[in-house]
Amino acid sequence: MPIEVFDSLNTFIKLHVDMSNTKITVVGGGLAGSLMAVYFAKRGYEVNVYERRPDMRNTDISAGKSINLALSTRGIRALERVGLKDAILTEAIAMHGRTMHDENGGLSYQPYGKEGQYINSVSRGGLNIQLLELADENPDVHLHFNHKCIDVDFESGTTMFEDENGDQVTVEADYIVGGDGAFSAVRMAMMTSGRMDFSQDYLDHGYKELEIPPTANGEFALDPNSLHIWPRGEYMMIALPNPDRTFTCTLFYPFTGETSFDTLKSEADVKSFFNTHFSDAVPMMPTLIEDFFNNPTGSLVTVRCYPWVKGKAALIGDACHAVVPFYGQGMNCAFEDCVVLDDCIEKHQGDLDAAFAEYQVLRKDNANAIADLAIQNFFEMRDHVGDADFLHYKQIEHDLCELHPDLFKSQYEMVTFTNVAYSEAKELGAKNTALVMEIIRQGNEDKISDRNFILDQLAKRDAMMA
Amino acid sequence: MPIEVFDSLNTFIKLHVDMSNTKITVVGGGLAGSLMAVYFAKRGYEVNVYERRPDMRNTDISAGKSINLALSTRGIRALERVGLKDAILTEAIAMHGRTMHDENGGLSYQPYGKEGQYINSVSRGGLNIQLLELADENPDVHLHFNHKCIDVDFESGTTMFEDENGDQVTVEADYIVGGDGAFSAVRMAMMTSGRMDFSQDYLDHGYKELEIPPTANGEFALDPNSLHIWPRGEYMMIALPNPDRTFTCTLFYPFTGETSFDTLKSEADVKSFFNTHFSDAVPMMPTLIEDFFNNPTGSLVTVRCYPWVKGKAALIGDACHAVVPFYGQGMNCAFEDCVVLDDCIEKHQGDLDAAFAEYQVLRKDNANAIADLAIQNFFEMRDHVGDADFLHYKQIEHDLCELHPDLFKSQYEMVTFTNVAYSEAKELGAKNTALVMEIIRQGNEDKISDRNFILDQLAKRDAMMA
Repeated sequence: MPIEVFDSLNTFIKLHVDMSNTKITVVGGGLAGSLMAVYFAKRGYEVNVYERRPDMRNTDISAGKSINLALSTRGIRALERVGLKDAILTEAIAMHGRTMHDENGGLSYQPYGKEGQYINSVSRGGLNIQLLELADENPDVHLHFNHKCIDVDFESGTTMFEDENGDQVTVEADYIVGGDGAFSAVRMAMMTSGRMDFSQDYLDHGYKELEIPPTANGEFALDPNSLHIWPRGEYMMIALPNPDRTFTCTLFYPFTGETSFDTLKSEADVKSFFNTHFSDAVPMMPTLIEDFFNNPTGSLVTVRCYPWVKGKAALIGDACHAVVPFYGQGMNCAFEDCVVLDDCIEKHQGDLDAAFAEYQVLRKDNANAIADLAIQNFFEMRDHVGDADFLHYKQIEHDLCELHPDLFKSQYEMVTFTNVAYSEAKELGAKNTALVMEIIRQGNEDKISDRNFILDQLAKRDAMMA
Repeated sequence: MPIEVFDSLNTFIKLHVDMSNTKITVVGGGLAGSLMAVYFAKRGYEVNVYERRPDMRNTDISAGKSINLALSTRGIRALERVGLKDAILTEAIAMHGRTMHDENGGLSYQPYGKEGQYINSVSRGGLNIQLLELADENPDVHLHFNHKCIDVDFESGTTMFEDENGDQVTVEADYIVGGDGAFSAVRMAMMTSGRMDFSQDYLDHGYKELEIPPTANGEFALDPNSLHIWPRGEYMMIALPNPDRTFTCTLFYPFTGETSFDTLKSEADVKSFFNTHFSDAVPMMPTLIEDFFNNPTGSLVTVRCYPWVKGKAALIGDACHAVVPFYGQGMNCAFEDCVVLDDCIEKHQGDLDAAFAEYQVLRKDNANAIADLAIQNFFEMRDHVGDADFLHYKQIEHDLCELHPDLFKSQYEMVTFTNVAYSEAKELGAKNTALVMEIIRQGNEDKISDRNFILDQLAKRDAMMA
């Protein structure tokens, strides 16, 4: 029975074939898993989501992950497809640029993009709950919590779980999607059952979350429309605003070595370290010592693997490409996976074998590119972001974007404010660097408003880099 | 009670401290595990070896690994340390060079090194059995078979195994060594309990073992003192001699694609493929069809990880650096791990924490280097080894080794016939390539016997590559 329904809620279109007898198991009810479940249901599939943890709508659980996230264009597009864009953005806080704090408390500022371009600080937990609720409202999505994936049969589409009583639950389905995060059990089952290229690479740095509460009169303690950075060379602290007028600070610091988490053992160690290096922040952090010793030290891993598809199963999000958080693209990239996979499903009209196959080819290089860029951005943020030379470079780049939007887009703009492929953004980013450095080398910064000068510089660069 | 005993069997010296109360658990009774167990026992430690499989001395088991291996200088040195050198070499077959077979059955030959330099074809099973027997003879080594490692507590030195009855066995020790191969359970426990960089990369090619039996009158069907190669560009077959006058052939061929194991489905497919591409070998392979369909298709993986040490445990051999087999160095490298770890134990006089820490630093870059070289050699063997240009290049390189042994060593010679660090051999190999290519470019091959010419070329190269 072919179905063609224009979904009034948004512009979602069901497939031309009836998929209501096709069952999908989604492993993981985090951000990617719950969004993908809704996508499947909207296409007419029967979806069961199995999440390892309890239902976060009823339980106060920390996922062991960062508290807030930067939602940008790719993620917004993905939410728009299920009608959640406005609900999420209403509660988000716009961050228009970076405010850098030097050791003396001096501030400098870089806008993220052109006028009107900004990223959005959203709560990971809040967003996840809204996605779960949307999934739960859909009669074709069934949520199961406290189910830990223990094995997968990729040929039959069977997934084995252990429930909260320790009993084994066997779930039959036509297809499986693994959206179960950086330490994915579905991926682990793929790895142990055949050839899969895989790597996990840890940064030497860990992270610790800390808090800046509102001021005595209930206001944000810092400008809420900025992402705050305290760049200190080998390490840094950042802060993102939350709707309750707190900031969540994150210290990125080496695990071991002379200046490291290992050497911050006593209260005195921590106080002295923060007083020396983050003196302007300390007065705003009344629970610094408790936060520091109560909160876990997280690690920062980049995971790459291939293939992402085996038999009846495909991976999405962190399960196939966990990235470090320094480009603010982990969630955005995972949501873009869902969009691309959904497009492939539409294109192949429910032939999920074909859809999975095309999806992984379309995404692989892009996932690698954003993983590389996120690591590059770590070094940029901690090492260079406070340099006068770097600020000058960023100013010229920013001016070029404003003056010649048709000729010049920054890499940051392409990654954050467009849906251009990450791999293309990475490539053009390297070309931009060459252009801006050459203009600075020539001392021709005053000529950049001249369109012909820029056209000439672009032609020379392209000739040189061809 | 300080002990200093000159071991009469060989030149092994016990430590200056009594280690007989220090217990070591060795996980894995393969080549590296059983050799390392003997090393520990000779130093005075109490050693328990736990092997997942049954005792190969009583059971005909295939390890799912290659049947014969090429033993060379590094491996011989390791065996010498426990007095096994002569026993092993007596049963080995010397291979002095490569014999290449073209599609018409034409032969060409490259010596591996200088006169008197050769590699040794040895039986993996035979060597493993001799190592297990040596271990078993030592009163300080206790062998336990059918014990599968299921978990490790790295702080306490406790290892959990499952025995053949499915019962859990908990083993306490002071230190643990994981010599349990490319899919190491000890490494897996390290990976899941904290930060460890890890990668596994598969070649697109699999391998299939086949046999060439002796001729009707009981002779080797091919020259036994060569490693035989049928290079065919995208794929190749090789053959190594065995003491029973058979050859073990290995076909390296893509898993999937137009010309691949996937497309060799019927007997007719296999016959036609071999008749077309290995026509001179086919008459020597009476069981080709049975072998092809009965024997498994193996995969080829490179495993890298770091650190190799966690708490009380260290990894050795394939468990920390599985390499593809194309340089014939997998076993030799694993045995060299044992030598280096043993040297570190002697240096640190039984302080195993210090010994483990130094061992991993000394070995890491070398393991990476041989992994890279083994992949390079795959492309060399299948693509180039039959080219006239390549043979000419190899001839010049060979002549330089013979003419100026003090000035020029080939990379192959350094890797195979010396104990020079793999990382140094890799670096010098790249420099050699530059030198030989330049001499060929100049057309100065006739001048290479002139020592001053070579000294001049070396100086120019070093200036250029500095």
